[in-house]
Amino acid sequence: MAADDTSAGIELVPRFTDQGYSPDQVRERREWLQRKLGVDLPLVAASAIPTEQMRGNIENPIGSVQMPLGVAGPLRVNGSHADGTYYVPFATTEGALVRSYERGMVMLTRAGGVTARVIVDTNVVCPMFSFESVADAAAFAAALPGHFDALRVEAESTTRHGRLKQIDTRVSGRSVIVSFRYSTADAQGMNMIVKATERASQWLVANGHAPRFRVFSGMSSEKRASGFLLGGGKGKTVVAGARIPAAVLRSYLRITPRQIVEMWHDTMLGHLQANAIGFNAHYANGLTAIFIACGQDVANVANAAVGITDYELTADDDLYASVTLPSLTVATVGGGTQLGTSAECLRMLGCDGAGQAARFAEIVASSILAGELSMAGAITSGEFVSAHETYGRNRPQTP
Amino acid sequence: MAADDTSAGIELVPRFTDQGYSPDQVRERREWLQRKLGVDLPLVAASAIPTEQMRGNIENPIGSVQMPLGVAGPLRVNGSHADGTYYVPFATTEGALVRSYERGMVMLTRAGGVTARVIVDTNVVCPMFSFESVADAAAFAAALPGHFDALRVEAESTTRHGRLKQIDTRVSGRSVIVSFRYSTADAQGMNMIVKATERASQWLVANGHAPRFRVFSGMSSEKRASGFLLGGGKGKTVVAGARIPAAVLRSYLRITPRQIVEMWHDTMLGHLQANAIGFNAHYANGLTAIFIACGQDVANVANAAVGITDYELTADDDLYASVTLPSLTVATVGGGTQLGTSAECLRMLGCDGAGQAARFAEIVASSILAGELSMAGAITSGEFVSAHETYGRNRPQTP
Amino acid sequence: MAADDTSAGIELVPRFTDQGYSPDQVRERREWLQRKLGVDLPLVAASAIPTEQMRGNIENPIGSVQMPLGVAGPLRVNGSHADGTYYVPFATTEGALVRSYERGMVMLTRAGGVTARVIVDTNVVCPMFSFESVADAAAFAAALPGHFDALRVEAESTTRHGRLKQIDTRVSGRSVIVSFRYSTADAQGMNMIVKATERASQWLVANGHAPRFRVFSGMSSEKRASGFLLGGGKGKTVVAGARIPAAVLRSYLRITPRQIVEMWHDTMLGHLQANAIGFNAHYANGLTAIFIACGQDVANVANAAVGITDYELTADDDLYASVTLPSLTVATVGGGTQLGTSAECLRMLGCDGAGQAARFAEIVASSILAGELSMAGAITSGEFVSAHETYGRNRPQTP
Amino acid sequence: MAADDTSAGIELVPRFTDQGYSPDQVRERREWLQRKLGVDLPLVAASAIPTEQMRGNIENPIGSVQMPLGVAGPLRVNGSHADGTYYVPFATTEGALVRSYERGMVMLTRAGGVTARVIVDTNVVCPMFSFESVADAAAFAAALPGHFDALRVEAESTTRHGRLKQIDTRVSGRSVIVSFRYSTADAQGMNMIVKATERASQWLVANGHAPRFRVFSGMSSEKRASGFLLGGGKGKTVVAGARIPAAVLRSYLRITPRQIVEMWHDTMLGHLQANAIGFNAHYANGLTAIFIACGQDVANVANAAVGITDYELTADDDLYASVTLPSLTVATVGGGTQLGTSAECLRMLGCDGAGQAARFAEIVASSILAGELSMAGAITSGEFVSAHETYGRNRPQTP
Repeated sequence: MAADDTSAGIELVPRFTDQGYSPDQVRERREWLQRKLGVDLPLVAASAIPTEQMRGNIENPIGSVQMPLGVAGPLRVNGSHADGTYYVPFATTEGALVRSYERGMVMLTRAGGVTARVIVDTNVVCPMFSFESVADAAAFAAALPGHFDALRVEAESTTRHGRLKQIDTRVSGRSVIVSFRYSTADAQGMNMIVKATERASQWLVANGHAPRFRVFSGMSSEKRASGFLLGGGKGKTVVAGARIPAAVLRSYLRITPRQIVEMWHDTMLGHLQANAIGFNAHYANGLTAIFIACGQDVANVANAAVGITDYELTADDDLYASVTLPSLTVATVGGGTQLGTSAECLRMLGCDGAGQAARFAEIVASSILAGELSMAGAITSGEFVSAHETYGRNRPQTP
Repeated sequence: MAADDTSAGIELVPRFTDQGYSPDQVRERREWLQRKLGVDLPLVAASAIPTEQMRGNIENPIGSVQMPLGVAGPLRVNGSHADGTYYVPFATTEGALVRSYERGMVMLTRAGGVTARVIVDTNVVCPMFSFESVADAAAFAAALPGHFDALRVEAESTTRHGRLKQIDTRVSGRSVIVSFRYSTADAQGMNMIVKATERASQWLVANGHAPRFRVFSGMSSEKRASGFLLGGGKGKTVVAGARIPAAVLRSYLRITPRQIVEMWHDTMLGHLQANAIGFNAHYANGLTAIFIACGQDVANVANAAVGITDYELTADDDLYASVTLPSLTVATVGGGTQLGTSAECLRMLGCDGAGQAARFAEIVASSILAGELSMAGAITSGEFVSAHETYGRNRPQTP
Repeated sequence: MAADDTSAGIELVPRFTDQGYSPDQVRERREWLQRKLGVDLPLVAASAIPTEQMRGNIENPIGSVQMPLGVAGPLRVNGSHADGTYYVPFATTEGALVRSYERGMVMLTRAGGVTARVIVDTNVVCPMFSFESVADAAAFAAALPGHFDALRVEAESTTRHGRLKQIDTRVSGRSVIVSFRYSTADAQGMNMIVKATERASQWLVANGHAPRFRVFSGMSSEKRASGFLLGGGKGKTVVAGARIPAAVLRSYLRITPRQIVEMWHDTMLGHLQANAIGFNAHYANGLTAIFIACGQDVANVANAAVGITDYELTADDDLYASVTLPSLTVATVGGGTQLGTSAECLRMLGCDGAGQAARFAEIVASSILAGELSMAGAITSGEFVSAHETYGRNRPQTP
Repeated sequence: MAADDTSAGIELVPRFTDQGYSPDQVRERREWLQRKLGVDLPLVAASAIPTEQMRGNIENPIGSVQMPLGVAGPLRVNGSHADGTYYVPFATTEGALVRSYERGMVMLTRAGGVTARVIVDTNVVCPMFSFESVADAAAFAAALPGHFDALRVEAESTTRHGRLKQIDTRVSGRSVIVSFRYSTADAQGMNMIVKATERASQWLVANGHAPRFRVFSGMSSEKRASGFLLGGGKGKTVVAGARIPAAVLRSYLRITPRQIVEMWHDTMLGHLQANAIGFNAHYANGLTAIFIACGQDVANVANAAVGITDYELTADDDLYASVTLPSLTVATVGGGTQLGTSAECLRMLGCDGAGQAARFAEIVASSILAGELSMAGAITSGEFVSAHETYGRNRPQTP
């Protein structure tokens, strides 16, 4: 803030020594706000998170919000990392959502479970290096692979967990955008790899390879939707699929494999007309609910919700259903993962702490598949409206 | 679920009469899960939301999650609906985020505040009508405007608040996708208008105008990113802008207007290379944090985060900054807006209940502008990494 | 050019009084070039287009290029404007292309012909009006519909053929992009409607409704691909479809309807992964060849090639195939349509001159459908490579 | 065609032994068409291309089309491959186009010329391999790099010129799309590399690595616009840039560097609103005109017109302008390059035959830069309409 805010009549949120994370300070801040706004905040105050634990996760804390938590399952996952049957926590206020995912999960479990695989497991930062001319930019791009080892040493000097795996260049006029791809262990890792990339970029400038750089070019699509994400690298690329016998599909969703394939076709036309990125029914619903429950960076849903759902008839006229999530940015350490209810929710999945991120990613992708199938069933069978009337908030009032 | 799940060895989450929303039932379900998974969930259990209030918002409830709540402000908004100075609640676990938005808000307030306007205020459902041939599809599209009054009567017969404002057709081969655009008062309104559109579509079939329809074509881009969203109609289109004198910009962000304009240019290249939709730094961060705090449908961030941030030099070399959010799906009634902490947070903004959605939208858009400016400052000045080290979780350990 | 080019050592292409379109001047220019470059251009010189006719179509003429012309057909079209059997001229150097389209055309004719419809018939210019603040922009957008009649009068005062049909606004920050949609009779009409729009925009400025404007905002996507085009307005939106009995499909393409539907599905995944706009196999091939033959503005292929091909099984397991071309910018008057071979080619289709553009559009769209089907057959049956070896240039050498 | 077309009343274009490329056969075919359609085709008949040379480039030939050819220049190019001053042939019927490009070329030459570089020089085919489950797909993708040498041997066994440089995988559900990237020497090379890729793919199937494949997945975006193209690989990625002193810009375009930068900014908003791919004013115009003149596959304009034009102020307030063309599919051998006027036009540029494709690419990209600048000048100065009235076909009639 500026030095003279107060004299300019700006009433800042109260400032405290060491940022104000003690219980008293949090209460004082909240009470100041209550007086200032003339509102009462008893439920915000009813926070079960120790205030000092909030340091590093939020500023100007005044308490906590609460959101209902439901559970959907069982979900059988046959992954490379996740091998078991799970009950998945969803934090949401959208009626019918948990029931919908649960329906898909039970069906998938009945069909033998979901096969899931992590295909790519990196995160990416894309700085931009700018030059006097296209000739200089081209020369830089051509020479860069030769600096890989030095860049790796520089980048990794800033982090215990991040590992630089690959660099790729994109010449754009007289600028060069470089993708620095890292493995980030079990962290989402953006802060980690931005710092590493800044260091490596500074090395390039200090050694005369480029006159200047910006650590962000905008290309990495962190927390944004883009076509770039489909190529992988920004978070985990995960696929999850299952073969669902026609009888199982009929039993749970009251539709046939061919009907669901036709629905895919028809709604693809809508996606094309919308100039959408990828194709899916509602990845954002499941991702958001699980991310909130499990202490993920929820804003990453903007990129994680890009993907492709697919339905195919098998040779036996059963259904093969799959989801491809090219940019699933999830973590089991760091960020909000260790805070209060988040740690409990990750623990429900056996995914709390180090070494669990890939497992968690496979469970999430498998859950998303369940949600796609259930929604596909509701749309195809024409039950979408009635399901929301049964479970949702705006159901008809009975006397 | 299917009748014989249990005999198939599938252990469903416990079932209760009337879905199980009593305190005892919620506890029983949670304890079943604790036993089943061998975990303890004390913080999930420490829910302050009365369990019966969860009905309609979630199924299989086991408690609540808690997320830290901080406050950013003051933010002066000069809107058509919002006219005042606000302190905005953010629920997040991403360190530095609240501080970053706060910085932008104070600067904007110092500069005289944000001008905000709601340009479009509708929500949309896009059913698909399918025909035998392109000739039939073309004829249907040509005739449809003549049925508008009848469609309106049908659609509005299902809802007290939804009003059908406009229909548009898109012929795609032998199908026709029709955009039904409604005003939904202060609700997000998807369930409302899906039901209304289903009724209107059934009328078209019953009266021989079309042989069949699907109520969802995929075009509306609910909870997905797409180019279609830029044209408006899916939620509120809101613009927010401010003129920021060069001296104010320097004082708060330590940059010049020209530097920020150049940053816009450079990072636009990255967005173009990524084939992104629109251009923004991190709408998803602010939207997610406010949506969680205020009981919005958080999954709508997938569409709401599509937009365009712009920076221009004025004739006097000051900065004009703006954000355009074409698909801001927000509500002050319905969904999760009345639940526990959500109602308190909306009340902090004077946006609780009917008649407040447009005001809320202007405050949200103005907050997003603050976040864009602050991030732009951090990127341009090179302070991004240091800011995250000061406030974030992975700051260097001091002995 | 600048006054002192010559003194700067720049050797301009020879200048002539009245631009130099006489036969002697064209020859003189060509001979200057031959001397300058040390090349001989006998075939360029062998032009059959009277040089004076080139005025208005090209500058610095030195002769003509020649491209082989082939014919594909018969193609039965059952359109609203085109009702007959056509032989369609293709100018191309890509071996196998004419044969491929011909195969599709004969099959479609055998199946009873193509049904085609022009759904939208306009062209669009999108000027941008810029303001001091988002408030002014919003007010302008709100008021603009009230000026429609005045804008129409202004716009139409500049043209005999253009008719302003609709205006739509898109607020983007403190700017407003306005779509001016016109019917342009049988001309492509861009120059016509840019001039009309400039006049109307000047009226808005002169009357104090906006401080300034640019006649081009970039949104109209003239000669570029974009999602905007899918919504129609930039040229004709045309659909063409046909039901093809399974036996006919097998006879001509050696595939089944189900195989082609599966191919659509599989290659859709590739389109999604590429973040393509729409879906098609090779619209650009047919459009380019017909556009060159018929004197169209060939650069419009960049927008005209955006579209959606669709394949569906009918209830009887026959195939319904369709193409949707949302931005088919074609003309039968103006531009190059009356020049030499162009007029002859249009005449082959009965589409020469006024009143024929919609007919031409239906024939073009029907031809594109033929090409899609034939390519689909080649891909599905695995004959693509062998077909190109039979007809293409790089066929294996026989001794 | 089917055996019984004639009995079904379908009048095929006349068939000849050995496809009918003799002068008599071409005449006979043309005369049949003239009789059938009741039209006269004297200019089509006035073809200077020896009919036998058409074999491999077209089927059912009836003559040639002619299009006016103009020349624009001088254009100074300082490339890695093109180093000289060029006069560039344009075949077009769009009035003012040649003059516009010429203006930009002379200005660029005056400013010292265009620096151009070929960054990537490959072409790509993307077959799809499909599996029983996502597990199999993931395993295939993981193992594929180990087969690179074998794939290269197989692929290159089919071609003298194609060289397999790289393979990349994209897992999509239970399918894997593999990008086979080749250098194709001076040919556009699609037929060459499709054949090579088919062979390599067959090897994978024959050796049990995949059960089936399609040689086309749709991802390569041949002759379509897509975001994928921006990443390079489909044709040459070429950048061309120049520094233009403010005085030179003013002299030729009557604008300042800052005005052009502001125009870039404003029209970028329009591109964003349109959800365009990349950013450019009219690449398609120049590409089409040069492609037609020089015997390129003109339909490739659909992909080649994707790119990014950029304008930046230098530290001295001069202008740096650049174009980035990520998918410039050009050739100097094969296809139509050796036919009649095409060979003459390539010779004008010193680009006829083997070893010249990279040079040609640099000249084309430099020409495109000239066109962007000239259009930018016309738009910025408000002279667009008047320029088209001076040179275009719909200029006002003088008595």
